[in-house]
Amino acid sequence: MGVSKFMAPEIIFGFNSLEQIGESVLRLGAKKVFIVSDPGVVSAGWVEEAIHYLRQCKLDYCLWTNVTSNPKDYEVAAGVAEYMECGCNAVVGIGGGSAIDAAKSVALLGSNGGSIRQYEGVDLVHRPLPPMVMVPTTAGSGSEVSQFSIVVDTERKVKMTIVSKSLIPDIAIVDPRTLMTKDRKLTAHTGMDALTHAIESYISLASTPLTEGYSLQAIRLISEFLRPSVASQHNREAKEAMAMASLQAGIAFSNAILGAVHAMSHQLGGLLDLPHGEVNAILLPHVMEFNLISTPEKYKKIACAFGENVNSTSPADAAKLAIKAVKSLADDLGIPHSLPIRNLEEDTISLLSQNAVQDACMITNPRDLSAEDVKMLFQKVLGSGRQ
Amino acid sequence: MGVSKFMAPEIIFGFNSLEQIGESVLRLGAKKVFIVSDPGVVSAGWVEEAIHYLRQCKLDYCLWTNVTSNPKDYEVAAGVAEYMECGCNAVVGIGGGSAIDAAKSVALLGSNGGSIRQYEGVDLVHRPLPPMVMVPTTAGSGSEVSQFSIVVDTERKVKMTIVSKSLIPDIAIVDPRTLMTKDRKLTAHTGMDALTHAIESYISLASTPLTEGYSLQAIRLISEFLRPSVASQHNREAKEAMAMASLQAGIAFSNAILGAVHAMSHQLGGLLDLPHGEVNAILLPHVMEFNLISTPEKYKKIACAFGENVNSTSPADAAKLAIKAVKSLADDLGIPHSLPIRNLEEDTISLLSQNAVQDACMITNPRDLSAEDVKMLFQKVLGSGRQ
Ligand SMILES: [Fe+2]
Ligand SMILES: [Fe+2]
Repeated sequence: MGVSKFMAPEIIFGFNSLEQIGESVLRLGAKKVFIVSDPGVVSAGWVEEAIHYLRQCKLDYCLWTNVTSNPKDYEVAAGVAEYMECGCNAVVGIGGGSAIDAAKSVALLGSNGGSIRQYEGVDLVHRPLPPMVMVPTTAGSGSEVSQFSIVVDTERKVKMTIVSKSLIPDIAIVDPRTLMTKDRKLTAHTGMDALTHAIESYISLASTPLTEGYSLQAIRLISEFLRPSVASQHNREAKEAMAMASLQAGIAFSNAILGAVHAMSHQLGGLLDLPHGEVNAILLPHVMEFNLISTPEKYKKIACAFGENVNSTSPADAAKLAIKAVKSLADDLGIPHSLPIRNLEEDTISLLSQNAVQDACMITNPRDLSAEDVKMLFQKVLGSGRQ
Repeated sequence: MGVSKFMAPEIIFGFNSLEQIGESVLRLGAKKVFIVSDPGVVSAGWVEEAIHYLRQCKLDYCLWTNVTSNPKDYEVAAGVAEYMECGCNAVVGIGGGSAIDAAKSVALLGSNGGSIRQYEGVDLVHRPLPPMVMVPTTAGSGSEVSQFSIVVDTERKVKMTIVSKSLIPDIAIVDPRTLMTKDRKLTAHTGMDALTHAIESYISLASTPLTEGYSLQAIRLISEFLRPSVASQHNREAKEAMAMASLQAGIAFSNAILGAVHAMSHQLGGLLDLPHGEVNAILLPHVMEFNLISTPEKYKKIACAFGENVNSTSPADAAKLAIKAVKSLADDLGIPHSLPIRNLEEDTISLLSQNAVQDACMITNPRDLSAEDVKMLFQKVLGSGRQ
């Protein structure tokens, strides 16, 4: 019966919604727009199309595309310098989670100053950000609706989690068309990231009736449409469903936060620059097995959302069906069972485990984890690498 | 596959969340707050408590309580005059739908000028409104999260529907404690209003995956908790559930809009100043019967949300169970079957019917209604009055 908070940006969803980017930016009072994207999205043509609509609204712009996956502190610093030099007064992010997280961090530093490291943690942003409009192109990160921005501290080699309501964009424009240029591997990885958001937010200690329905609905959609979406770039129904699933999972985790999978994958992402979605997909079933005893009833509902028939199943077995369904989806998508890492030192694993316990996402995990528990889980997914 | 939009305010939900009103108003940049409420809410003590928290944040205020149920154009005009004279720069509404709708309309005129009649319709607001924080005390209207404000044009004796994203408050503070001072009749009426929002938004032509889950969850909660909430002022679990149900139904209908029940009840409310929730409750089963053929599958899901067992029922019968469940709830709450009106002229009914067809809420009703259809429905609920 505690007090809970809920917040989401304005959302424009649907095929061709990208057409509305010009008027969206315009009504937020922008004059010159700083566009953050990455080379892959540029070559797919989405940035060019967005610029066309911005120009129709007589908006000036500056394009910055020096973002890599797992965006780095120095990339953000370079982006801010460019933002200031261009004299922009609004930020548009077009791309996957990396481009959007980078865009949000540029907006943060452009208005609040300093270096991104100062803002690591919860609620450390004190001045309003410039208007932000985000266009996700991967159906995975949910960053277009979330209060998170994840940036790598390249010195410490850790992913910093920056959490603030100020990081929620003003408008999210979700156009499923943009998913039709993604390759199958990225589609699989980002889809499994969205699934991880849905499951972790659902079993989170901070979930509420305003988030739980979105989490379950996202699981239902992913269970039905991620396979066909990976199978074909042209399946419009699957793209629309995955765009909606990622959006709903994003709203859910922005408000209910995440859990041990993200706390652990942030460490691997920071140290080894591994693909976030793939790491999550590999960790997810193991963490689910560990977390099961905390909330078997919710696991049963996850199994139901996967379409499992639990009517004549014991509660304990019904809960396990949720894990089986996740594994079977990951297998169908060709996700490996262990991480592509060899020879990780014992000391390094211990350090990663200690850092994971401190990660902001660990607080809402439904089962307490010691550094030893985390280490044991890391060792499971490092299995083949450690032989 | 069209483009849909979704928008909701920041929400602070839970017992004692009212404590956060001072800091909420403060961080929106307010200095002097115009508080809109009504005498009933004042005597229940909620306004005094809110003022206490505002004062703790060194906020000045001006209190205005000349609002009646079904707020009138001249009340809003008087409120705006007071708002301007006091030099306020933020608006707080504390009360039921009437107080909050009045507060929103005061904020609208205080920033956009003119008379409220100019803004009747969709998207006619062009200048930003002052910061608005709303505290609902009835678990019914959903106005604390919606883009609607309903004000009576006392000259034409019609309810004007004003729809604009600008009318969505900045922050909704939903404290279930405030429901513990409502009498049983108001609890029943406002609860049935929330149910009407949930059902009409669910079957609306404009419903989306972002609204449908909230609609169904609201129906589930109302089905389980409205009876116990009417039964006892002190049932905290029921108050919390009804506060959440009203909130979810509010988010749903703000984005998916409503249907024929509201289009019709707006006319009766405008002409005869009848209680909105009670009129809706009486109209709802009749309109549901009329609408059934438009979407029997959704009716089946409504029946499920009411806890009806539809497993071994034919689709047609399952759909009808939704209507049966609504009737049974209304009966248990002592809602009459017909309106407390006698001797309404045939010509008046015809005029009300023509106006209902023009109401903004009629556009999203899932079945087309002619003025003749509406008249037939009106006559059903005027039945006893017409003998
Ligand atoms: Fe993620
Ligand atoms: Fe209503």
